[in-house]
Amino acid sequence: MRTKTAYLTLNTKKRIEIVRITEEVAKTIRESGVREGIVLINPMHITAAVVVNDNEAGLHSDYLKVLERLVPYNADYRHNDTGEDNAASHIWRQLMGHQVVMPITNGKLDLGTWEQIFYFEFDGQRQKRVLVKVIGE
Amino acid sequence: MRTKTAYLTLNTKKRIEIVRITEEVAKTIRESGVREGIVLINPMHITAAVVVNDNEAGLHSDYLKVLERLVPYNADYRHNDTGEDNAASHIWRQLMGHQVVMPITNGKLDLGTWEQIFYFEFDGQRQKRVLVKVIGE
Amino acid sequence: MRTKTAYLTLNTKKRIEIVRITEEVAKTIRESGVREGIVLINPMHITAAVVVNDNEAGLHSDYLKVLERLVPYNADYRHNDTGEDNAASHIWRQLMGHQVVMPITNGKLDLGTWEQIFYFEFDGQRQKRVLVKVIGE
Repeated sequence: MRTKTAYLTLNTKKRIEIVRITEEVAKTIRESGVREGIVLINPMHITAAVVVNDNEAGLHSDYLKVLERLVPYNADYRHNDTGEDNAASHIWRQLMGHQVVMPITNGKLDLGTWEQIFYFEFDGQRQKRVLVKVIGE
Repeated sequence: MRTKTAYLTLNTKKRIEIVRITEEVAKTIRESGVREGIVLINPMHITAAVVVNDNEAGLHSDYLKVLERLVPYNADYRHNDTGEDNAASHIWRQLMGHQVVMPITNGKLDLGTWEQIFYFEFDGQRQKRVLVKVIGE
Repeated sequence: MRTKTAYLTLNTKKRIEIVRITEEVAKTIRESGVREGIVLINPMHITAAVVVNDNEAGLHSDYLKVLERLVPYNADYRHNDTGEDNAASHIWRQLMGHQVVMPITNGKLDLGTWEQIFYFEFDGQRQKRVLVKVIGE
């Protein structure tokens, strides 16, 4: 059995931003030497999500617009009584799905044609980490 | 360590359809010979989700009704400016949860009484694949 | 390769309740002897979710308030024609994310500063189980 752990660091310019990380995940898999297994991609922060979907800017803006409509950033939240203003960011990351586990076959990410891996930052402009854990053989 | 990868193919008659795949996943586990481990079930298409919930038709219609109410199919989406009309399908699959990882114990899917595995197709009527990856020993 | 399976039992006093289970998961990892691997934490019931987010009571009340606003418990659902009244609980668990897979590094849960693991019960007051499956080496 082989395992490898990498910590990607991201620091987005905007508070809310979507960053493609497929290549960084693929690189970690290559370095692991794993031929058959899985890779967990988990944001280590709780106002961000890792999402597999389309690399299409229009869709990305649709996601953000829907999240704002369903759970408005400036609505009234008890979490924001603590001095934070990011309650909606915590909720959005749950609605988008938090994390993913992806397959590794023949030494590579086993993706469908349009599957790309993204980091959805909902409270950025500071250093964040995404953990990539490969296990397999 | 043992691994096995299977690609289920599905081609739904309706554009939006829910298909139970528990037995296909169980079969892949049996073929893998894995006694203790996990199985990743991941749609290779980005307008579909794999969901664990109840095998009850009323609930399935409730899911679809809620998704349409929260994110209407025919609303205005930037993704649909590309010539597609399936922006809502991409968003629904995120809200429903994208994928699952399930436990294997004593050579079998270790399910609670009511847990069943479903493929939620949100843009069907063409051939789609679901990847089933077993790892364990 | 090493694996270990634990079944946590929970019986919440309230129908809807959020219970922190980070320590129970950490204990299972210690008992497994796994140094590098992953842990799947999966509710065996379909009206509950396992969620990683902040240990902050205000945010927890925000989650519940948003779920009730988006998918009201007492609205009209076909699932409730079966004699149940918990259709919304099934839907909420999907919106919150169902399950998580977390990394194990150097024999410990590899968590970010604020990551805590919670069981979100949406139909409690009876015995429920959460499966914890460790795999690694």
